[in-house]
Amino acid sequence: MKKVVVLGSTGSIGRQTLDVVRAFPERLQVIGLACGGNLSLLQQQAAEFGPKFVWCGSASGAGETGAAQWVGPEEMASHPDADVVVVATSGRAGLMATLAAVRAGRTVALANKEVLVAAGGIVMAETRSSGATILPIDSEHSAIWQSLAGEERGNIARLVLTASGGPFRLRSAAELAAVTAEDALRHPTWEMGAKVTIDSATLMNKGMEVIEAHWLFGVPYSRIEVVVHPQSVIHSIVDFVDGSSKAQLSMPDMRLPIQYALTHPERWDGPFRRDIDYAGLRSLEFERVDTERFPCLKLAMEAGEKGGTYPAVLSAADEVAVGLFLAGRIGFPGIADLVSRVLDAHSCVPDPTIDDIVAADAWAREVAAGGVGTARRSEERRVGKACRSRRSPYH
Amino acid sequence: MKKVVVLGSTGSIGRQTLDVVRAFPERLQVIGLACGGNLSLLQQQAAEFGPKFVWCGSASGAGETGAAQWVGPEEMASHPDADVVVVATSGRAGLMATLAAVRAGRTVALANKEVLVAAGGIVMAETRSSGATILPIDSEHSAIWQSLAGEERGNIARLVLTASGGPFRLRSAAELAAVTAEDALRHPTWEMGAKVTIDSATLMNKGMEVIEAHWLFGVPYSRIEVVVHPQSVIHSIVDFVDGSSKAQLSMPDMRLPIQYALTHPERWDGPFRRDIDYAGLRSLEFERVDTERFPCLKLAMEAGEKGGTYPAVLSAADEVAVGLFLAGRIGFPGIADLVSRVLDAHSCVPDPTIDDIVAADAWAREVAAGGVGTARRSEERRVGKACRSRRSPYH
Repeated sequence: MKKVVVLGSTGSIGRQTLDVVRAFPERLQVIGLACGGNLSLLQQQAAEFGPKFVWCGSASGAGETGAAQWVGPEEMASHPDADVVVVATSGRAGLMATLAAVRAGRTVALANKEVLVAAGGIVMAETRSSGATILPIDSEHSAIWQSLAGEERGNIARLVLTASGGPFRLRSAAELAAVTAEDALRHPTWEMGAKVTIDSATLMNKGMEVIEAHWLFGVPYSRIEVVVHPQSVIHSIVDFVDGSSKAQLSMPDMRLPIQYALTHPERWDGPFRRDIDYAGLRSLEFERVDTERFPCLKLAMEAGEKGGTYPAVLSAADEVAVGLFLAGRIGFPGIADLVSRVLDAHSCVPDPTIDDIVAADAWAREVAAGGVGTARRSEERRVGKACRSRRSPYH
Repeated sequence: MKKVVVLGSTGSIGRQTLDVVRAFPERLQVIGLACGGNLSLLQQQAAEFGPKFVWCGSASGAGETGAAQWVGPEEMASHPDADVVVVATSGRAGLMATLAAVRAGRTVALANKEVLVAAGGIVMAETRSSGATILPIDSEHSAIWQSLAGEERGNIARLVLTASGGPFRLRSAAELAAVTAEDALRHPTWEMGAKVTIDSATLMNKGMEVIEAHWLFGVPYSRIEVVVHPQSVIHSIVDFVDGSSKAQLSMPDMRLPIQYALTHPERWDGPFRRDIDYAGLRSLEFERVDTERFPCLKLAMEAGEKGGTYPAVLSAADEVAVGLFLAGRIGFPGIADLVSRVLDAHSCVPDPTIDDIVAADAWAREVAAGGVGTARRSEERRVGKACRSRRSPYH
């Protein structure tokens, strides 16, 4: 029986994680559930799964969720009974819990993008020194991880991350200026939370995935590419030095990579399998990314390459910008503009500590929320000078 | 330094094997070369690679190829100095040499389809009992093998073999009746020998690959599918029980799977790597196989499923039929007709010995070459009754 802690259990990935647990009642057991604010759903989940530990950011504590013990997310994430800690929060929430889990040598199944984007260098260093394990849940990183089974990482020549292209793949720049939050929340192939859905529409999501892939697989940015693949059937591709490539495929269903992260190194015959009917699909299509219309991808890759606190600032500014867009306060192209302006205004800290990252994050949120007023709008959308770390082989 | 024996060194796969050896002069060494009849090319190859052993079916022996020792293919294939024996002959040639290599516990890189088609049960049983290893060179089987790295074979749910569809994929039945050998020898994506090229045009090649895949990976026919993929970029796909699939991809170049078979479990950075430009390709297409127009695929899969000596008869009859087509003596649809009629006329031997297989092969060649005269043309093209073995888990 594998014991599972789910942080962010009421969100999209959290609920799908519980779908997987529900499918294998003899093999998976929920021992901890934590969420930010949806107490009533947490109560339902606790009643169904009977976890030992619960926590809700918006609730006062014990008594609200039956017999379960009220335990904070960091303690829950690092508890020795947890065989796997699913970090399914979005945004900055999850960074401290992930760090706690990693420092305690736990196995973390990571769905939260911002953890590695903001603090990849620190999280990976802690992972190496404690012997912890980070397993990706994102379909792209799961695809790369699965393609690397039985392979030497030193033989990676290139990673090709696929992107659905989002709901606005075919819209002109003029049309993009007019799209609404409602338009953006209709994702063509994946069902996800609002933040991730908007990030998927801007391709910021894909840019963050490039940064994650860099950290998870130790591949320099120059050897990570993104290609648009609207059907989301090939989830990513690894090229090897000998000219052979391997890809992982499935019909788009997040429960599959979640299940793999929970069952690895085994594969369990489960209810989510749907054979791909290749002839029925007729073709798997690919297009180049248009970074003119979708500048967030380039912003993210540049921030990743420059390193230091830039990626944390990118992530924090994006979280604010997406919130402003969802609230109808800025337009769709305003997301990239705002993130770009915050990056331009940032004084990067190389080799950041967690405190530096938290400070940069807070600074970026404040600047983004206040607007950057007189800050020049960068036509080039170039982030500041390189901020090269001396700690990692890449920066 | 890995020591390589190449049987069939003057054929298409043999020459491409030597291209690979040429690319890694510090890591690969040819110690044996054998061919059927092209003595002058063998002499050139021997002068370039300086093997210890040579053999040519049409030559008299020592003295014709310099200092090398004249050694028959079976002895060469089982020689303890051979780290890997590349069996790159086509048709029946190669069966006895492969058996000799396998009995001697060698590592065989197998490009010859007919060996496993005719005698898969025997070859695999000998491989298991001697501890020999069979590595596939065919791009489809190499793709499956590579996709299975780090995976449990028990987790295979389905194998999907891709087929280019051959040069006549888009021709109507009426047009197929009129095609010539010259038309058929122009393969759209792969450069191969004449026999394999015609088999590729009839899809007999793909049917034989299904039989090979059955033996190599221990998967029942009911869980092996074929899909047409004209670009030959995805070389085959493995579905796992949990709903995840893995595929191996590359630009079509036989030197890549040959190199992998020679370097496995390593991957060597070599000159044959060509990055796939997915956006440039625009799409990877898939179509269902039309077994009405291309009945050979169905004939082969039925012969495989029925087992016994049927696949040996299929293979032998096909070799004769392709020869008759290349000589202009029968039309393109005549290949399937002739093979079908020979199968219909065959009295299957279940659990065949090698002698049974050799006898069935000889019988099939004789019947096919003579035509089956008054034998009824089977409209249904059904081969005879099941011929189920008691030896294997599958038949």
